[in-house]
Amino acid sequence: MEDVQNQSDSREQPIDLVGVSGLRYPITVRDRTRQRQSTVADMTLSVSLPHHFKGTHMSRFIEVVHLHHRQIDMETLPEIISSLRTKLEAERARIEVALPYFVEKTAPVSQQKSLMSYDCRYVAEVSPDGDDFVVAVRVPVTTLCPCSKAISDYGAHNQRGYVDIEVRASRGPSGLPRMVWIEELIEVAEGAGSAPVYPLLKREDERNLTMRAYDNPAFVEDVVRQVAAGLRDDSRIAWLHVRVETLESIHDHSAFAEIYWPDKRPDYDR
Amino acid sequence: MEDVQNQSDSREQPIDLVGVSGLRYPITVRDRTRQRQSTVADMTLSVSLPHHFKGTHMSRFIEVVHLHHRQIDMETLPEIISSLRTKLEAERARIEVALPYFVEKTAPVSQQKSLMSYDCRYVAEVSPDGDDFVVAVRVPVTTLCPCSKAISDYGAHNQRGYVDIEVRASRGPSGLPRMVWIEELIEVAEGAGSAPVYPLLKREDERNLTMRAYDNPAFVEDVVRQVAAGLRDDSRIAWLHVRVETLESIHDHSAFAEIYWPDKRPDYDR
Amino acid sequence: MEDVQNQSDSREQPIDLVGVSGLRYPITVRDRTRQRQSTVADMTLSVSLPHHFKGTHMSRFIEVVHLHHRQIDMETLPEIISSLRTKLEAERARIEVALPYFVEKTAPVSQQKSLMSYDCRYVAEVSPDGDDFVVAVRVPVTTLCPCSKAISDYGAHNQRGYVDIEVRASRGPSGLPRMVWIEELIEVAEGAGSAPVYPLLKREDERNLTMRAYDNPAFVEDVVRQVAAGLRDDSRIAWLHVRVETLESIHDHSAFAEIYWPDKRPDYDR
Amino acid sequence: MEDVQNQSDSREQPIDLVGVSGLRYPITVRDRTRQRQSTVADMTLSVSLPHHFKGTHMSRFIEVVHLHHRQIDMETLPEIISSLRTKLEAERARIEVALPYFVEKTAPVSQQKSLMSYDCRYVAEVSPDGDDFVVAVRVPVTTLCPCSKAISDYGAHNQRGYVDIEVRASRGPSGLPRMVWIEELIEVAEGAGSAPVYPLLKREDERNLTMRAYDNPAFVEDVVRQVAAGLRDDSRIAWLHVRVETLESIHDHSAFAEIYWPDKRPDYDR
Repeated sequence: MEDVQNQSDSREQPIDLVGVSGLRYPITVRDRTRQRQSTVADMTLSVSLPHHFKGTHMSRFIEVVHLHHRQIDMETLPEIISSLRTKLEAERARIEVALPYFVEKTAPVSQQKSLMSYDCRYVAEVSPDGDDFVVAVRVPVTTLCPCSKAISDYGAHNQRGYVDIEVRASRGPSGLPRMVWIEELIEVAEGAGSAPVYPLLKREDERNLTMRAYDNPAFVEDVVRQVAAGLRDDSRIAWLHVRVETLESIHDHSAFAEIYWPDKRPDYDR
Repeated sequence: MEDVQNQSDSREQPIDLVGVSGLRYPITVRDRTRQRQSTVADMTLSVSLPHHFKGTHMSRFIEVVHLHHRQIDMETLPEIISSLRTKLEAERARIEVALPYFVEKTAPVSQQKSLMSYDCRYVAEVSPDGDDFVVAVRVPVTTLCPCSKAISDYGAHNQRGYVDIEVRASRGPSGLPRMVWIEELIEVAEGAGSAPVYPLLKREDERNLTMRAYDNPAFVEDVVRQVAAGLRDDSRIAWLHVRVETLESIHDHSAFAEIYWPDKRPDYDR
Repeated sequence: MEDVQNQSDSREQPIDLVGVSGLRYPITVRDRTRQRQSTVADMTLSVSLPHHFKGTHMSRFIEVVHLHHRQIDMETLPEIISSLRTKLEAERARIEVALPYFVEKTAPVSQQKSLMSYDCRYVAEVSPDGDDFVVAVRVPVTTLCPCSKAISDYGAHNQRGYVDIEVRASRGPSGLPRMVWIEELIEVAEGAGSAPVYPLLKREDERNLTMRAYDNPAFVEDVVRQVAAGLRDDSRIAWLHVRVETLESIHDHSAFAEIYWPDKRPDYDR
Repeated sequence: MEDVQNQSDSREQPIDLVGVSGLRYPITVRDRTRQRQSTVADMTLSVSLPHHFKGTHMSRFIEVVHLHHRQIDMETLPEIISSLRTKLEAERARIEVALPYFVEKTAPVSQQKSLMSYDCRYVAEVSPDGDDFVVAVRVPVTTLCPCSKAISDYGAHNQRGYVDIEVRASRGPSGLPRMVWIEELIEVAEGAGSAPVYPLLKREDERNLTMRAYDNPAFVEDVVRQVAAGLRDDSRIAWLHVRVETLESIHDHSAFAEIYWPDKRPDYDR
């Protein structure tokens, strides 16, 4: 049968990314306690395509995912991408893996356990310009408004907010990206809000968190700065982007704040 | 050209609803101040199909919408549906119109004006069993947790919540559905929460609402009951469904409560 | 500490459903091959609340989920719900579990394997009126338009469509709901479209499916009827709802069709 | 009352963007025929914040929108942003406006009229580094797979796809951004797919489009290149990003391709 994709193209226009998106697969990832956890990923895989080739071979992306889905994490992704690059004869290959990552939480007073899910994302790229690796996580927190507290005789509006952190790992002596755990990013984000949130809270926990939030008011501006200040001096981190959005309880819109450090970067912004 | 849709079918299976969904159109609706407002609707239109017909004629739905889109409201919908029913030679015709509806809000202390959008939905049906008309609106409110307030020395967690109200109008003496204004449903919902929300609030308004919410703690259970109690005795309302969902500020999940009155009904539940 | 929820309420208004929604948990479910699969669920849990109680105890929902999340399927759900009902001292308890369910697919010609995810939902309820159990699945298929094929000299527009099936199981001699496998519903849905879809297809498979779709044109009306006709005579099924929606390739809106059999039912419609 | 936002901050961390998102407002925009159209916008407004200020004044964003919402388009946005910058005493101010934009379409054979909505987005920024203006639009098209056509005896799979175009206008002699009409971008996108899509098509139109798509097969790679080649030589355009995604009818995932020209840029990528 004809291989239409292998035909040539004359528009003199290389393609930055071509591939598949919205591919859902069960995957197994490693977590900090060195155990493995099973979760479900939404994947986007792509390669670059030189100007003279008409098309890429989409089915090979699925073959690579199917082969490797039992072992996807920061350590194996580089190898999976290399295999993608070879199989598709591409200069550049890239994988994005979005997944809920589960962490056991212990309620602050009752000590009751539950599992909390965090939306995470790994983005890895291999290219002649060097490899790249980004980890992202969305951390829900409580924020209590400093202005509302200061101007009211009692009470203060508060709400759920989301702290989105993206970090690009620096290279270690081996040339490999340094390891930053999702759990570490969660800790920084939770420490920057007025209080953390939990799936399971008994009354004594609710009392504790209510007063903790009132004692730690924070604007979106405070949260985004606190996270950036907590990560910018970490030598494992070469670049970061923090976005905080709070679902204001007195409005039907959100407040948000964003920091790029040391500056904006063109890659991985979507 | 062949009219495939007019062919016959032998599976002895009538179809309850067949039509188009996700049709977006600019529309003009009437608001309580007797002015017209321009907004954008997401529409679903359908008819019933007897067991012996193979298919319906989808393009006619769009023709009807295009013809009438400048004048869609509670008063004109019955006529539009009748035209749909005739044009598609159907026993039953049904239109769902989902739209943002804008209401001018005045901040409680500063008296500053802004426009707030409410997700609304009209569902109208004409059939041999009689006509039907449902109005639905989603109203954001603040809720402040009575438990958190009672057990804490200071503060109380609060959050944005959504009150979804659906009402089926009763028939007036003329046989037409009685008019219930979106604005009336919004008022009931806002009165049932701990405090209303606004797009534009100055500091003096924020102080007012912060303390008002603290003075009026309400569980989802309280809000849903208050709305049902406020509407069930209104003679213009034959049936209602209320759902309250609060985006808990101490969790990453929601609390919710629902009441059907006088009971669940099979129609219009989706 | 004060138990605010246990206080009484005087509005004479019972609540149909009160609980938590949007709770994401890793769960393990049983699949037809008798193996277990790990996936991620979005859960909604609720109970009824008599008119005289102010509130329910939300944290107990999470405790029940945390205790049982390693074993959730059609066989264990009744027990989990009973435990919920007891723990919350409620007349009625209800659990909805939405999850991606993975099935191994074999490409029709190349025989290559891949995993395909299907959005599924279990709804189970225990109440004095009797227990209830509903299984739902969304199956993507290809549909090729019979009209477009008939009136064109060559080609025919086709597109991805979704077949949503909900079935309520009948009772077996033991009084328990009869088992209907997700895999069986998928088979009926795939047989009703113009062709099934797969994650991984090589060129020979693509050729096979392209021609199979052209040989089997089907309107949404045909697909919805074919599914209803294929399930309505199954004695394990007491009630069903089928909805087919096709992402028309010649429009930016969808076509859809729905059948309820033997009729509409008020429960579980949302 | 205390102005908490005006307090100072010692973390030495400026904030790139701080403001409000998810603000929905009815707006009036200008279209190519020099008439105005009413639509509904989802807005994001932000400013930069120097390291020594604690917070910005969120309510002022809403005041600016309320004042100007009847006149928002490429010509007035610069003025609105300047007013925002002044009012918030910021170095940099930025507005994103996402809206459905309606264009009248004429069916190819029957000549019947209908309105089609296109998701558009304007992003405008004023800063000491110079002003910036980006226009984006999503255009649905049909794509028919060249491979499927080539290897099959008859038929070819086809589907709806979305062409997302973002262009940054170059400066005219006056220093203002040059005008690029949404309608022009739509034309380029529709010309690059296998066939355009319409809300309203009669049978003769469906026949026409079915055969036109079969005569013009196009991979995502072809579409993305065709759009880039059609815009890169337009002197009004300084930068562009094109992304094409097709809702494959033989898969439950998408194929996609992206081109940045002349290269990736850090701004406006989200």
